[in-house]
Amino acid sequence: MANALKNSTFMVKIKKIRDSKWFSNLTTSIIIFYASVLGFETIDSVAEPFGSLFYSLDYAITVYFVIELSIKMAAEDKLVNFFKNGWNLFDFFIVLITLIPIENSSFAAIARLLRIFRVLRLFTARPELKSILDMLIKAIPSIVDIVILLFIIFYIYAIIGSFIFADMPSGLWDNFLVAMLTLFRVFTFEDWTDVMYETMEVYSWSWIYFVSFIIIAAFVFFNLFVAVIIGEMQKLQDEKMKEEIYKDSKKLDTLLKEVQELKKMVKKNKKPNI
Amino acid sequence: MANALKNSTFMVKIKKIRDSKWFSNLTTSIIIFYASVLGFETIDSVAEPFGSLFYSLDYAITVYFVIELSIKMAAEDKLVNFFKNGWNLFDFFIVLITLIPIENSSFAAIARLLRIFRVLRLFTARPELKSILDMLIKAIPSIVDIVILLFIIFYIYAIIGSFIFADMPSGLWDNFLVAMLTLFRVFTFEDWTDVMYETMEVYSWSWIYFVSFIIIAAFVFFNLFVAVIIGEMQKLQDEKMKEEIYKDSKKLDTLLKEVQELKKMVKKNKKPNI
Amino acid sequence: MANALKNSTFMVKIKKIRDSKWFSNLTTSIIIFYASVLGFETIDSVAEPFGSLFYSLDYAITVYFVIELSIKMAAEDKLVNFFKNGWNLFDFFIVLITLIPIENSSFAAIARLLRIFRVLRLFTARPELKSILDMLIKAIPSIVDIVILLFIIFYIYAIIGSFIFADMPSGLWDNFLVAMLTLFRVFTFEDWTDVMYETMEVYSWSWIYFVSFIIIAAFVFFNLFVAVIIGEMQKLQDEKMKEEIYKDSKKLDTLLKEVQELKKMVKKNKKPNI
Amino acid sequence: MANALKNSTFMVKIKKIRDSKWFSNLTTSIIIFYASVLGFETIDSVAEPFGSLFYSLDYAITVYFVIELSIKMAAEDKLVNFFKNGWNLFDFFIVLITLIPIENSSFAAIARLLRIFRVLRLFTARPELKSILDMLIKAIPSIVDIVILLFIIFYIYAIIGSFIFADMPSGLWDNFLVAMLTLFRVFTFEDWTDVMYETMEVYSWSWIYFVSFIIIAAFVFFNLFVAVIIGEMQKLQDEKMKEEIYKDSKKLDTLLKEVQELKKMVKKNKKPNI
Repeated sequence: MANALKNSTFMVKIKKIRDSKWFSNLTTSIIIFYASVLGFETIDSVAEPFGSLFYSLDYAITVYFVIELSIKMAAEDKLVNFFKNGWNLFDFFIVLITLIPIENSSFAAIARLLRIFRVLRLFTARPELKSILDMLIKAIPSIVDIVILLFIIFYIYAIIGSFIFADMPSGLWDNFLVAMLTLFRVFTFEDWTDVMYETMEVYSWSWIYFVSFIIIAAFVFFNLFVAVIIGEMQKLQDEKMKEEIYKDSKKLDTLLKEVQELKKMVKKNKKPNI
Repeated sequence: MANALKNSTFMVKIKKIRDSKWFSNLTTSIIIFYASVLGFETIDSVAEPFGSLFYSLDYAITVYFVIELSIKMAAEDKLVNFFKNGWNLFDFFIVLITLIPIENSSFAAIARLLRIFRVLRLFTARPELKSILDMLIKAIPSIVDIVILLFIIFYIYAIIGSFIFADMPSGLWDNFLVAMLTLFRVFTFEDWTDVMYETMEVYSWSWIYFVSFIIIAAFVFFNLFVAVIIGEMQKLQDEKMKEEIYKDSKKLDTLLKEVQELKKMVKKNKKPNI
Repeated sequence: MANALKNSTFMVKIKKIRDSKWFSNLTTSIIIFYASVLGFETIDSVAEPFGSLFYSLDYAITVYFVIELSIKMAAEDKLVNFFKNGWNLFDFFIVLITLIPIENSSFAAIARLLRIFRVLRLFTARPELKSILDMLIKAIPSIVDIVILLFIIFYIYAIIGSFIFADMPSGLWDNFLVAMLTLFRVFTFEDWTDVMYETMEVYSWSWIYFVSFIIIAAFVFFNLFVAVIIGEMQKLQDEKMKEEIYKDSKKLDTLLKEVQELKKMVKKNKKPNI
Repeated sequence: MANALKNSTFMVKIKKIRDSKWFSNLTTSIIIFYASVLGFETIDSVAEPFGSLFYSLDYAITVYFVIELSIKMAAEDKLVNFFKNGWNLFDFFIVLITLIPIENSSFAAIARLLRIFRVLRLFTARPELKSILDMLIKAIPSIVDIVILLFIIFYIYAIIGSFIFADMPSGLWDNFLVAMLTLFRVFTFEDWTDVMYETMEVYSWSWIYFVSFIIIAAFVFFNLFVAVIIGEMQKLQDEKMKEEIYKDSKKLDTLLKEVQELKKMVKKNKKPNI
């Protein structure tokens, strides 16, 4: 019993640490610090003289992440609860992967690259970022059909392009996939006239192909943009304004009931008077 | 009579198939599969070894489309009803065109190209895409006048450009049509300074022509964009909010009537009291 | 008196013509036809064989414009009223200018160019275009301060740029005006890295100059865009929604008055009962 | 006492000058004039012949700014109040800095550059510009999280890019900082295919890196834009519409109270009748 009590006060302490502001801020700071360390490591003039320092820092930060994860796991009453949360699972695997000691040349490069996913732990440390991500993901369904439509437009133009312009010396229309990439380039207006002038030398009418593609694709893309704005506005109105109007509507219902009751009362009143 | 009954149960079955989810999903899957087949056919390294496979696939898909169309036609009580729907007509002609056996060299290329319109059958298989198309088409009237205005701006600048810069060695201002294309290029900001620096060598003031064109055209285009957003918002408000407020307004009318009736009753009540 | 009557029926006829749909449509058609004639005149292969045809067409259209203007002027009870309308004045001067017979070489070119302003008569023939123009002009005040702010940003960067990068061999920073043009180019993202990489060879820190300019200018431009959208929305709400809510508010006022009167009546009723 | 009175009338006069429209307009005009003088000074063909004129103008304008500042300082009852306003402090330091007589070569260049900050005094002379600045600054919090998200995307792609493409001969991926700049360039669509085609020669799959970066970054940037628009709209609705609806809601509350009182009165009325 004493042991359970002792254990319990220990749990309370651990939970306090886990939920404290300074613990979350410390983790955020360390992630940002780690992110800049990763950045500086790519600059040769900085990386070479301080190579061993970077190695120790990496080691220290890995240790911190293990401790931080242990605290989070220990603070749960049942360990299973910890793994029920998607973000916890994400944290767990990011830390686990970077723990695997791969030093041989072929995997070392990949292992080093995987370290950058630690920076994604910023999402678990900052709830605001999570909610932005949620918002972005929620915005996708309202545009999915327009994206499909845009894809159909790209597809048809890519097939036509790879069929007619297949012999262009630049190789921009060699096959369907390359044509899709070329159309994406045209869509971003990136040197699209270079592509057009090349085809126009053989097919002088081909400006119709490019101009029609740009106008149609831009118009659809336009409406994709509008759809996102209108979708967000609808949510805003549904949440805020309607609620306000709903309250008024309720009040009106109450009023009507009150007046009708009054009417009945006055009616009853009236009879005895006659 | 027995025959009619038999026929009737057959009709019910056919209609069931036509309206079933799996039939629509199967058609969609086959169209998407066909679209990727068309894509892969353009990649030489894939197309050559599997040439005969692609040929058989093409044949099989054509057969499926004929069957699918037959089912849709058979499911109608009167065949005429089938052709009353614009999308059905579209489906019919797409299938019909690809059935025509053109193997001689001059038309074979066009016939092969026409096959890509089969991908457009995706619109008939997915009602969401139809409604997006409807939305896009409905958005056009609200912008048609701004598009005309934009065209007038392009027109005036193209005439002036083809008049003044006609002798430029690049040939970008040779005549009205070429000047329109050049201005479209400038409008997309595609290497527009190359065009400007060329004219500035002869006409040092010509930056005014280009900068004024970009600012004016961009401002009008801007408002085209705003017009689409505001147009969509107006619809949203007219549909959603107004309906809500309209309900409240109706309630207020009822209330007023009730109170006025009450007043009359009280008035009548009053008299006997005097 | 008979003369006056005769005159009056003539006036009525003229006014009928002026206000008729076919007269306005005819004018619009002729302007559009004239616009395409002007376009084709710039294409040498078309202009040379049909030179005299174009000359006659030009003559015929000038005659039509004079007749059209005469009808409009004759249809006014007092000629002064005609000139009170800004668009009429515009029409009058456009027609007048193209009537002046300038055939000598130095002015002929300008006179030919001035003919394109006839296309602007489309605005007087189509009221929808006029209202779009009005809308665009009304949108300007809501953005004028942001445009000034944008100009200040351009100004400061241009002064700094023309001061520090003055010696660049490309001559893009020679003086304040050239620097403004270069910054406008950077603002449209047109080969801006070419400009940056040139300065970075001498001043390696100069990416800060360009990146900060792009981010600041884009952010302000952004809000210019937002200001237009919000401005239009505000108008929409002020016009449509408020009016609707205003009606409800009036109804509420009436209701309150009615109920208060009722209360007074019931109060009076009550007294005799005691 | 006579002195105090004399002083007081002097103070009133000074305050009148400070608050007068013409004084503010004069200052604005002089700043704009000064701004154009600074611009012309960078044009060698103008600056050289009028060098001494520009020097005198600069001197005169400096004198005006000192006088203007003195008036503003004298018009305050207590000098401390003057320095309590942030914009006044800004004015004071701008004028002070340009007063310091630095003629030796090393600092003269910086001193000359500092003069352009005088143009920023336009903000203190025009209250509309101040409010636009406030609006822009207020718009920042609503986008700060999306900017962080955008930065994370840039960061991850920059680390991956500087890791994989480090050996590219163009040196665009040499280290993390250079890779960030390259990605910013790709983000503005500035010759991004040149960057891509270079990496695709070694890593043929690298189009995935660029296309995915553009799509993801553009989508997030998109939502940044939407966030600004929605944020502004929310403010608009909260301020304007809600206030309107709030009034109606208050009226409804009054009505309900009145009707309930009426009901009580009728109830009391009723009893004696039984």
